[in-house]
Amino acid sequence: MTQPVSRRSGGRNARRAARSAPIAKDERSVRPGMEGGVLKPLTEEKMQRIHEAAMEALETIGLADAPESGVKYLLGAGAIQGEDGRIRIPRAVVEDALSKACREITLYSRDGEHDLTLSGNRVHFGTAGAAVHMVDVEGRHYRDSTVQDLHDAARITDKLDNIHFLQRPMVCRDISDNREMDLNTIYATTSGTTKHIGTSFTEPDYVDDALEMLHMIAGGEDEWRARPFMSNSNCFVVPPMKFATESCEVMEKCIEGGMPVLLLSAGMAGATAPSTIAGAITQAVAECLAGLVYVNAIKPGHPAIIGTWPFGLDLRSGAMTGGSGEQALLTAGCAQMHKFYGLPGGAAAGMTDAKVPDMQAGWEQMCSNVMAGLSGLNMVYESVGMHASLLGFCHESLILGDDLVGHALRCVRGIEVDDETLALDQMREVCMGGPGHYLGTGQTLARMQADYVYPALGDRTSPKEWVEVGKPELNQKAIARKEEILSEPSAARFDPIKDKALRERFRIHLSS
Amino acid sequence: MTQPVSRRSGGRNARRAARSAPIAKDERSVRPGMEGGVLKPLTEEKMQRIHEAAMEALETIGLADAPESGVKYLLGAGAIQGEDGRIRIPRAVVEDALSKACREITLYSRDGEHDLTLSGNRVHFGTAGAAVHMVDVEGRHYRDSTVQDLHDAARITDKLDNIHFLQRPMVCRDISDNREMDLNTIYATTSGTTKHIGTSFTEPDYVDDALEMLHMIAGGEDEWRARPFMSNSNCFVVPPMKFATESCEVMEKCIEGGMPVLLLSAGMAGATAPSTIAGAITQAVAECLAGLVYVNAIKPGHPAIIGTWPFGLDLRSGAMTGGSGEQALLTAGCAQMHKFYGLPGGAAAGMTDAKVPDMQAGWEQMCSNVMAGLSGLNMVYESVGMHASLLGFCHESLILGDDLVGHALRCVRGIEVDDETLALDQMREVCMGGPGHYLGTGQTLARMQADYVYPALGDRTSPKEWVEVGKPELNQKAIARKEEILSEPSAARFDPIKDKALRERFRIHLSS
Repeated sequence: MTQPVSRRSGGRNARRAARSAPIAKDERSVRPGMEGGVLKPLTEEKMQRIHEAAMEALETIGLADAPESGVKYLLGAGAIQGEDGRIRIPRAVVEDALSKACREITLYSRDGEHDLTLSGNRVHFGTAGAAVHMVDVEGRHYRDSTVQDLHDAARITDKLDNIHFLQRPMVCRDISDNREMDLNTIYATTSGTTKHIGTSFTEPDYVDDALEMLHMIAGGEDEWRARPFMSNSNCFVVPPMKFATESCEVMEKCIEGGMPVLLLSAGMAGATAPSTIAGAITQAVAECLAGLVYVNAIKPGHPAIIGTWPFGLDLRSGAMTGGSGEQALLTAGCAQMHKFYGLPGGAAAGMTDAKVPDMQAGWEQMCSNVMAGLSGLNMVYESVGMHASLLGFCHESLILGDDLVGHALRCVRGIEVDDETLALDQMREVCMGGPGHYLGTGQTLARMQADYVYPALGDRTSPKEWVEVGKPELNQKAIARKEEILSEPSAARFDPIKDKALRERFRIHLSS
Repeated sequence: MTQPVSRRSGGRNARRAARSAPIAKDERSVRPGMEGGVLKPLTEEKMQRIHEAAMEALETIGLADAPESGVKYLLGAGAIQGEDGRIRIPRAVVEDALSKACREITLYSRDGEHDLTLSGNRVHFGTAGAAVHMVDVEGRHYRDSTVQDLHDAARITDKLDNIHFLQRPMVCRDISDNREMDLNTIYATTSGTTKHIGTSFTEPDYVDDALEMLHMIAGGEDEWRARPFMSNSNCFVVPPMKFATESCEVMEKCIEGGMPVLLLSAGMAGATAPSTIAGAITQAVAECLAGLVYVNAIKPGHPAIIGTWPFGLDLRSGAMTGGSGEQALLTAGCAQMHKFYGLPGGAAAGMTDAKVPDMQAGWEQMCSNVMAGLSGLNMVYESVGMHASLLGFCHESLILGDDLVGHALRCVRGIEVDDETLALDQMREVCMGGPGHYLGTGQTLARMQADYVYPALGDRTSPKEWVEVGKPELNQKAIARKEEILSEPSAARFDPIKDKALRERFRIHLSS
């Protein structure tokens, strides 16, 4: 128990006593779903122009390559197929879909403790991607990513307060069969974390098996449908302005199976999207609105996250780049467009082009993450662990990302202004006849946990203390933390009976 | 000469040709003085409350310890001295000072190429501080900072496009006499860069010598007064709410000598300022408004930068921390208060608690830097090179900071929305019968330099290329760049006659 603290008990000892008390979850300084929205790189007028351009693109350019089923849904909703096969969507049809669309999405966790509510400016950070490499920090080396790496990423994510969901960040390259890979992705992630999970499916055929596995994990289809803890990250378009035929079929099956979908449009500015930030956002908005029409034609109000994910390109080389200032603007601008329509949305931030967790990784990851958060992006995907312009995932970087995102979340929380925080009373007391400093005031002590974010691994020692503790390297601290987490059993592992049943029904590659 | 580029010449070759052309200065993607202001952590109502609280603090608490001369100036302006000796400033007196205050400040460079105009939301990044250590990156070691280190920092800054000014970032610990240290600070910085310089003076007595040196450098007093290329960073208050007697006397002499002043209030939230963000901002605003009254009582309209620099504290240890999310909010909130009053202002950002340029340094430096820029802070002080919560300066980090600030500046530049950037025409052309990608469009090629910021040292190679080039370490690249810059003669060095005169008149510690 903490002792009662006198108002001027003199600083350090009182602070030490106060900090030894555990912090209740609802008293933590930052948490999932804090409200951003104070960053507005687009004015109302600019958003209106982007909207108009997107509408015109849908009406006059439209999208090619819809699957047969999709053509039926879309024409049924009022879209028009031209002689060139493209589906053009009149403005009224988009408006109709907007009137039906789900505007508050709950992404469920398995334990009920980590449910996410997507609406307004509520911000959540998590992983995502399809990296093909793991970054070996110790050896400064890239190797193929495996199902064990994915499972470990899930277990680490489960332990990090500021990482709110796990979307599959890497592919299991040790599983050559795509069906097995997709199913093992479900197993490896769900057995590693109870937080909400996102994943994708290579072919529509695999969705039935996936749903069967999810029903088994949930304890039955009804249980699954009541709290779907996995969403489908769906690249339903191949920018520019073409439906991804197979992915659309996957989407149809996921909607039928009660799974929320992320309508993901991943254009590359300068290659598969216009090179300008406004143009890339416009095209992504148009594509995602087409997806919204599609989803709501299948099932009005089905939870669909607007996934405008335009990526930057290094125009000198033609290669993707995720760590630029342009990327941060693309993402923040997209977040604003989600608010323009009042739709839950997500985009990519926190990516770096650096190969290892170095200073470049830090500045690139923070730039787009903090801007995504400040702009009120509901789902900040790819926010941690992604290196080499999305090609490599790094467990140590994921762990360090928890500190990084903690700071970003503190910024999202913003500045409270009220009589207590304005602190005139304190100022008067301290300055006029008082001690001349605020170290021991009751307010300073009372708010030291609730107002401030303290890094877990970030170093705040003085140069002298730093020498005394042996000049620890940040990456070494992250390696040690990783080993500590992975030495404990997964808190999300299945009970032996369920695990046995899953292993009997499916070929599970992770050893039990 | 570049060749004419056909509209669809197929990408890579055309891009290579385009990128080989040099970029004219006014066509660069980012530059000093870009307009921020899209980040507003404070609402109008919150700003109004902070203003009211600051006014009340000035009226009812006031400031102690004004020098005799200052008491005269302040009472002359309408302030009231209480029996407790504190100077209380009625609201009307503040309003009167605001009506006289300089609202557009030019900070001159020596070459005329790097003048800075401080007004509105125009953003400039530079160094500042009083570090006592140099960070030896190669040896992971802290050592005392020297006059040579300071000179080298100036020479490096001179070469970095995104570092717009040099405020003295470290003290010369190899010069024990304070007068000599102050004078050698002028020599070491001005002989290293022609960009605008900020510095401080330990005692009012030293200002005459300093001005004499500045007149010699300028070529005469009139030349100096016409274009003062150095400003006085002046810690005129000792928070909470006390004038720093000697610094105020320094300020009076600098104003007389025609030197712009930075009214620097460096409270520590939780120690010398309230622990809450709103409270720390309120106190800093009150203190700087007191300074504004003071300056305008001496000389109406004298250029004075509002230096609300509240710092964060780690309340667990009571030690300063510069790299937190709270710090970024303190700084962005201060920037907004500058706009509230329509006054040119500056604050600290870009500091890190990390000891070396590692991932933590990157995320901490970017967080507050990009938020400072987006909030339209006129002068972003401490933005690069500052480690260990301001105790250590690092040349390599300064160099890497140029890339970091480049990205932040790109974010400040924001999202242009017009018919060309919305790119509907391109979208139509590319999608309907076109190539299906934007790589070779005229717009992509035309805008590839003007729209994008490319890192100088930041790594964008693929994992394969990274291996081929020997997995370069970022800090090693910075060391090599530092050695390259320092192997060239300083472009700002004085001509031999002037240098001889300076060395005859003053004891210059730098070897010639």
